[in-house]
Amino acid sequence: MFSRLFAPTVEVSAHCDLPCGVYDPAQARIEAESIKALIAKVEASDDADFRTRAILIKEQRSEEVKKHLWILWTDYFKAPHFEKYPNLHTLINDATKLAGAGGTKGGLNAEVADQLLAKIDEIAEIFWETKKA
Amino acid sequence: MFSRLFAPTVEVSAHCDLPCGVYDPAQARIEAESIKALIAKVEASDDADFRTRAILIKEQRSEEVKKHLWILWTDYFKAPHFEKYPNLHTLINDATKLAGAGGTKGGLNAEVADQLLAKIDEIAEIFWETKKA
Amino acid sequence: MFSRLFAPTVEVSAHCDLPCGVYDPAQARIEAESIKALIAKVEASDDADFRTRAILIKEQRSEEVKKHLWILWTDYFKAPHFEKYPNLHTLINDATKLAGAGGTKGGLNAEVADQLLAKIDEIAEIFWETKKA
Amino acid sequence: MFSRLFAPTVEVSAHCDLPCGVYDPAQARIEAESIKALIAKVEASDDADFRTRAILIKEQRSEEVKKHLWILWTDYFKAPHFEKYPNLHTLINDATKLAGAGGTKGGLNAEVADQLLAKIDEIAEIFWETKKA
Amino acid sequence: MFSRLFAPTVEVSAHCDLPCGVYDPAQARIEAESIKALIAKVEASDDADFRTRAILIKEQRSEEVKKHLWILWTDYFKAPHFEKYPNLHTLINDATKLAGAGGTKGGLNAEVADQLLAKIDEIAEIFWETKKA
Amino acid sequence: MFSRLFAPTVEVSAHCDLPCGVYDPAQARIEAESIKALIAKVEASDDADFRTRAILIKEQRSEEVKKHLWILWTDYFKAPHFEKYPNLHTLINDATKLAGAGGTKGGLNAEVADQLLAKIDEIAEIFWETKKA
Repeated sequence: MFSRLFAPTVEVSAHCDLPCGVYDPAQARIEAESIKALIAKVEASDDADFRTRAILIKEQRSEEVKKHLWILWTDYFKAPHFEKYPNLHTLINDATKLAGAGGTKGGLNAEVADQLLAKIDEIAEIFWETKKA
Repeated sequence: MFSRLFAPTVEVSAHCDLPCGVYDPAQARIEAESIKALIAKVEASDDADFRTRAILIKEQRSEEVKKHLWILWTDYFKAPHFEKYPNLHTLINDATKLAGAGGTKGGLNAEVADQLLAKIDEIAEIFWETKKA
Repeated sequence: MFSRLFAPTVEVSAHCDLPCGVYDPAQARIEAESIKALIAKVEASDDADFRTRAILIKEQRSEEVKKHLWILWTDYFKAPHFEKYPNLHTLINDATKLAGAGGTKGGLNAEVADQLLAKIDEIAEIFWETKKA
Repeated sequence: MFSRLFAPTVEVSAHCDLPCGVYDPAQARIEAESIKALIAKVEASDDADFRTRAILIKEQRSEEVKKHLWILWTDYFKAPHFEKYPNLHTLINDATKLAGAGGTKGGLNAEVADQLLAKIDEIAEIFWETKKA
Repeated sequence: MFSRLFAPTVEVSAHCDLPCGVYDPAQARIEAESIKALIAKVEASDDADFRTRAILIKEQRSEEVKKHLWILWTDYFKAPHFEKYPNLHTLINDATKLAGAGGTKGGLNAEVADQLLAKIDEIAEIFWETKKA
Repeated sequence: MFSRLFAPTVEVSAHCDLPCGVYDPAQARIEAESIKALIAKVEASDDADFRTRAILIKEQRSEEVKKHLWILWTDYFKAPHFEKYPNLHTLINDATKLAGAGGTKGGLNAEVADQLLAKIDEIAEIFWETKKA
């Protein structure tokens, strides 16, 4: 399933609000991958200043995840999508919460980063189904 | 008159993602008011450069409206709210779309700005009900 | 209660530099309220990472306070206002300093946050007087 | 060659300056795709306000392309890469210039957008070779 | 020639809000020089898209001028300076207004850009006097 | 003394991407001076919160150094410059790396800040030679 996820990047994407019509869940995923890598680096370090830098960068990366997901929710997905996928609102809302204060912003927990990545993959799966439709 | 002004602010609001617990739909409303005022000014002017400036500023203000609403959707509203107000997802999603390319970003239509303001007021009404609860 | 909430916003405010003519000292106040709430949360916590996050967010919120006050000083207040209120320059300058390195940016002192809020209220009082004039 | 380009996204990437070690030329490419789509939309429209919005968004997207390429140049590529690929400095410099005032920022030329995409693909090819090494 | 160039920078300036203690009115001046150069380029061109880009960039550069002057007003200048130079508040306020909607943001007037540069030079003169004191 | 101060600025600089034609290596140097001053202040303090603030501000200032150098590399320097100064690519690349994770972003080392300043001076020397040419 994973390789399928990124394969479509070629056909894809609309992300600016002209709108240009180029969206891609990969943008949120790259940021979330970055958060996961960053948590692993902090766990392997005992430098307090490095931890401070990691917390500050994680704050920014988590915000980017939220922003990319919000753009999909508002600019890409339309009423027919929300009808066809009744849990789509909740799915995206949960994913953005996982990147917020109760999630990757508020902690340095590798499992939470994995949960965030899993939610982004669920959103991506629906995204690509709607692109094929 | 002064105490009336700030009184509501006291009971309110959480908007940073610490989270500080200070949210206020007034932030989205002030930006939307600004968009409406701006559209009126453009209609009253025939200076092409002024119109260019207005379009560019309207783009930023509309983005701010979206951002403030996204923050409410992700950071303030929780699962019990979405259960109690089943149309809340759709309401906020519609409002953010009204501030996007199909709404105030994409045009200079005073009626669309009014529709956006009305949606923000609907969201605010629910917001204040949940604060009382 | 609802109409009371937004009523003041209607009469108010100019904040973008078109200018749209929509200014509102409430914007600075919401940010300062956020800083105060944040300081209280830090005092109630002994999590070092939480403190790091709070310091970083307080930095941003304090900058927002300064920005909103600078906009009032440059874009809203005009020469006649400065003549009528001879201490207005000093008042706003002091308020911005209270949000800077010697104030809420540089420390986690609840009293300083209160002083900042009091100064913002003084500015707001003058602001609303000039709106009535 | 094209499908190969995006396939590796899975294994990839480091892009924040912790550094997290997650880089991906796809980020620059998505922005450049957006510019290309935007130029096509402007060519198909005769609405002056839409053109204004497109110019302003193209300015931002082009800046993003530059930023993503600069990050690869400074943060990902190291001395051994520049030795092995003697034209790498020039290649990236040319690509960033193609996203600047003499390129996609300064005009609405679909061919220039194609040249930019081609340069990004050349950089991506070297990038993926170095990841395999 | 080289030492002459950077010599002044050495004695100067504090601009971040740690504060680092490095301020320099040259930052505002560089932005204002940019605005002046930009106005000259627009006057020499009859390309409508170029004009649109110039208006958008001038908006950003004017905002930067305001920001750099606000930082001097709030972070560098202290009560004794305002006592010694009674017109300093007004001088800086006027300069920021010259970079706003009634000044370089709102128009493409080379004389206004010159007035802005002259005000910045007056501020710089006071600034350097206070550095010597 | 005053004319000496701004004299160099007059001959200089192009930095926005219109382009306005106003570039100045002093912008990168002011940010690097700020980093150096900040490191000295941290060394003289044992306040943990102050250190946190310093790390966060140093992150931003280092990013500004990189940005200003990237702009020179992409927007000011042209092919003939890179031919005449064969080490120019490497020089600028090294300087940006010195402001990154392996340099002033990643540590609080005064010597690294000095190395960064020295590299910026080397770039400035070439810059001013090309302006005379």
